[in-house]
Amino acid sequence: MERLGTVAIVGVGLIGGSIGLAVRARGLAGRVVGIGRDPAKLREALRLGAIDEPATDPARGVAEADVVVVCTPVSRVAADCLEAARSSPDRALITDAGSTKAAIVVAVEGDPRAAAKFCGSHPIAGSERQGAAFARADLFEGRACVVTPTDRTPADRLERAAGFWEALGGRAVALSPDRHDSALALTSHLPHVLAAAAAGVVPADLHGLAAGAFRDVTRVAAADPDLWTAIFLANRGPVLDAIEQFRDRLDTFRRLLRDGDGPAIARWWAEAKRARDLFDFDAHRPGTEAPSRGSP
Amino acid sequence: MERLGTVAIVGVGLIGGSIGLAVRARGLAGRVVGIGRDPAKLREALRLGAIDEPATDPARGVAEADVVVVCTPVSRVAADCLEAARSSPDRALITDAGSTKAAIVVAVEGDPRAAAKFCGSHPIAGSERQGAAFARADLFEGRACVVTPTDRTPADRLERAAGFWEALGGRAVALSPDRHDSALALTSHLPHVLAAAAAGVVPADLHGLAAGAFRDVTRVAAADPDLWTAIFLANRGPVLDAIEQFRDRLDTFRRLLRDGDGPAIARWWAEAKRARDLFDFDAHRPGTEAPSRGSP
Repeated sequence: MERLGTVAIVGVGLIGGSIGLAVRARGLAGRVVGIGRDPAKLREALRLGAIDEPATDPARGVAEADVVVVCTPVSRVAADCLEAARSSPDRALITDAGSTKAAIVVAVEGDPRAAAKFCGSHPIAGSERQGAAFARADLFEGRACVVTPTDRTPADRLERAAGFWEALGGRAVALSPDRHDSALALTSHLPHVLAAAAAGVVPADLHGLAAGAFRDVTRVAAADPDLWTAIFLANRGPVLDAIEQFRDRLDTFRRLLRDGDGPAIARWWAEAKRARDLFDFDAHRPGTEAPSRGSP
Repeated sequence: MERLGTVAIVGVGLIGGSIGLAVRARGLAGRVVGIGRDPAKLREALRLGAIDEPATDPARGVAEADVVVVCTPVSRVAADCLEAARSSPDRALITDAGSTKAAIVVAVEGDPRAAAKFCGSHPIAGSERQGAAFARADLFEGRACVVTPTDRTPADRLERAAGFWEALGGRAVALSPDRHDSALALTSHLPHVLAAAAAGVVPADLHGLAAGAFRDVTRVAAADPDLWTAIFLANRGPVLDAIEQFRDRLDTFRRLLRDGDGPAIARWWAEAKRARDLFDFDAHRPGTEAPSRGSP
């Protein structure tokens, strides 16, 4: 990727802050402008070295941007992209980091001026934590960064969006917005629902009897309620489908357990174990060895 | 706790091996005998320093034991406790590390000679990994170690079992076998079921689009199918109850999402988040600070 002049980041929380840190650490741009409503959060991002310049006025913040990355909650992404499209130079690439894509992409592409600059994105990295204080320059290294072109996406914007995430260390993966949303409903949104449902059924007075399984299964239930409510609402159909698939699988287990069918329970579990053993979170992460699998 | 002469460990896998390492590291006994069917596993435990002496003959292995800890899979625990009761000295404490308790305790206490030496236990610590190679001397530090007295448990055996786990760094917690099983169905067995069901519904070709939420929610699905099948069968009623509670909670979410009821979804999530924020896995672990909670 050619060195950029100005990168503007709308929303400097965990994701926006990590983008800023990565752009600055890798020297990818002349300056990073952080845009937000809350001056205190912008000062924090500045102090942490995630941005070079704060801007509370979005129009001024994007006025010279070569790349605008919108990292606000999914309920605000489309509006923030449209606003950025109005005030940014013609040459600008506008992209985002929203966890759902179909609704956002349709809304942004409904405006021809925005469509001419836009390619949707979703870097698949994050944390249950919020805020620039938890941002990390290496957050995207080795991570899938989905770009979601449609037949309205200009080819050069797709290429620039993919190149931007690759420059941050990510692996660009192109998917249609719908395929993205169905996949993420299974790989991310469903696990979040399960984590919260599991955390909700265990009374606090039993926490002392919980160990690593409970800790890990419920970890992401500590995430922000409003952020996740917006994601679920924006991806309602695929999330409901994912829940149905999960329920079917859970009901199979329940039936086998009611029947006391040990061999079938062991097969049910072994199928899940085979799937889990194939998953290697760090497979694509540079500089890390795959963790030992445990079973001799 | 007074220094013990001989501790005999039946089954030297992750849990048995960790007990051996802890007993030896803390100098709690004159010698640790490891008992098992597989000479190769016993040699491994010896090499790792988890035991002082291997024994493939259970009767000879427990002949001089002050404490026998049975750490075999739950389907074998009761039989191994009964066998140890036959061959161990009158003074011996026999306990176990099984993940379920009611069925084991009833079976062991059905034999008066075994009942006179026995108090059931369950140290709540472990891993999805198997084998002495993953044993750790500090596995029990700060962890709840449940002892499950009944009206047939000799008071001194209860006291000695609790003292044994405390000497290993654990926190002894006394619960009836039934209360233990109901609690663990929620805090451990349910999370395992959810992990496996979630791992099973995500096709491997989507793994590249999964990140930390999927990794953590599904981690324990890598555990051994036979071990977990035995646990589920031994704790069938409470596990089915826990699944019902979970399903109710999941179904509430599904209904709210179908209705598009954002405020109610946010409340549903916030309730789970409050519960999860209260959970602090390391609260009782010496030498570790509570991790930062993330949200400023």
